[in-house]
Amino acid sequence: MGKLFVIGSGPGDPELVTPKARKAIESSTDLVAYGLYLNLLGAICSGKSHHDLPLGEETGRARLALDLAASGKTVSLISSGDIGIYAMATLVFELLDQQLQGLEHHPEWLNVEIEVIPGISAMQAGAGRVGALLGHDFCTISLSDLLTPWDTIVNRIEHAGAGDFVISFYNPVSKKRHWQLNHARDILLKHRPSETPVFIGRQLTREDESIAIITLAELDAGDVDMFTLVSVGNSESRHIINGTKEWVYTPRGYRKLWSPTQHKESA
Amino acid sequence: MGKLFVIGSGPGDPELVTPKARKAIESSTDLVAYGLYLNLLGAICSGKSHHDLPLGEETGRARLALDLAASGKTVSLISSGDIGIYAMATLVFELLDQQLQGLEHHPEWLNVEIEVIPGISAMQAGAGRVGALLGHDFCTISLSDLLTPWDTIVNRIEHAGAGDFVISFYNPVSKKRHWQLNHARDILLKHRPSETPVFIGRQLTREDESIAIITLAELDAGDVDMFTLVSVGNSESRHIINGTKEWVYTPRGYRKLWSPTQHKESA
Repeated sequence: MGKLFVIGSGPGDPELVTPKARKAIESSTDLVAYGLYLNLLGAICSGKSHHDLPLGEETGRARLALDLAASGKTVSLISSGDIGIYAMATLVFELLDQQLQGLEHHPEWLNVEIEVIPGISAMQAGAGRVGALLGHDFCTISLSDLLTPWDTIVNRIEHAGAGDFVISFYNPVSKKRHWQLNHARDILLKHRPSETPVFIGRQLTREDESIAIITLAELDAGDVDMFTLVSVGNSESRHIINGTKEWVYTPRGYRKLWSPTQHKESA
Repeated sequence: MGKLFVIGSGPGDPELVTPKARKAIESSTDLVAYGLYLNLLGAICSGKSHHDLPLGEETGRARLALDLAASGKTVSLISSGDIGIYAMATLVFELLDQQLQGLEHHPEWLNVEIEVIPGISAMQAGAGRVGALLGHDFCTISLSDLLTPWDTIVNRIEHAGAGDFVISFYNPVSKKRHWQLNHARDILLKHRPSETPVFIGRQLTREDESIAIITLAELDAGDVDMFTLVSVGNSESRHIINGTKEWVYTPRGYRKLWSPTQHKESA
């Protein structure tokens, strides 16, 4: 019986790859992943069979990983970030589900032992890079309308705005898709101040990382590409400047307890 | 000039502590954290000054970390999970902000070099433990009404329900606070089916871990304590059973592309 590790390798910095992920990769004979991710992981990937497929072939990649594991191999299916967040893990289980319903013809997939290993997602790396942007209730929204109807996405943005969640936009733009981010901004401007801090992080924790803190009014899809995370603060998020350092954080509201005398806190 | 590392040490499993976190702790002279977290981290914490404060003294802990770093030490302030998510990071920046506004009297804090190192949060460990529950847009909501008015929390739950987000409840109950989770359940039952899968994970990735997959209708605060994460699927989340294995995943909708012929995908 084969084994399939479903692994999130973190945002890019090898120091943010968990030992659990590293050991799983080391124990594997076969790696299914974009070449770029393996380059970031470095030497632990050498000497293993590397299976790549073109960008856009997500289903083929998940099928291949299941097929290889079903043939008795120990396989790592790897995505950057957290593989459970807008990445390959859900596809593996969607395929298993199809098989269980008799809609696929791969009963051998059902014998594969599967282990999912989470990773640090871009929103976490980004929030930490500038302070504590995710300090209170937050949500994530993918702006890709390939698989999700745009009406559903708009509904989510509206409710995220009305609920005053910190919002991280994944897949903010793609080569063919650009206008959605500005539409999202305009929806949010109905719900929170134009000066709400926005974090833009490109290639987070990688050598060519670039980050910026702007306002919601300044957010423009033209400044964003498919390697960028966009996180929008809630109505209470604060952009503070200490000399040459800038931070953004979203308060939980502890200061309410600090004046005039300090009270006991408990979550 | 002192240095303050603000570190998330992950859900509990030492194999989920990032090398970056581990190195920061190793380079520190002083650790500010609950004793429990340090026990989980093991040997790397030995030989360092350990500063603990009673549960509930979050502000005191953040002040102490800033004070120690301001005195020239290298300090690690550690929370389990991701320190940026419902944990100590936001407090550090809330204190800095107060100082910048002249509401504190610790100008020395402003000279501290601060680095935030994210960690794997409970929702990620939980989702991976049972498959891919966070496979589509999701949010987090803390049910603690100590610092956030209950009306604000209810508003968030309502909008998370109407927006059909997967929802992870942090601080679902406390010793003094129990009824909020059932109230949250009742709100969500207006928006999604009673059989919606719910994940309950206690002491995730630790020796005494226990997990359960139930339905939204079955969710009851009596089965939950303060060491428990509760994640509620969206209206499309699926609970699948493969022999003795159970999984929960939230589809992104790839199956729409699979029938009758496979189409090119791209995010």
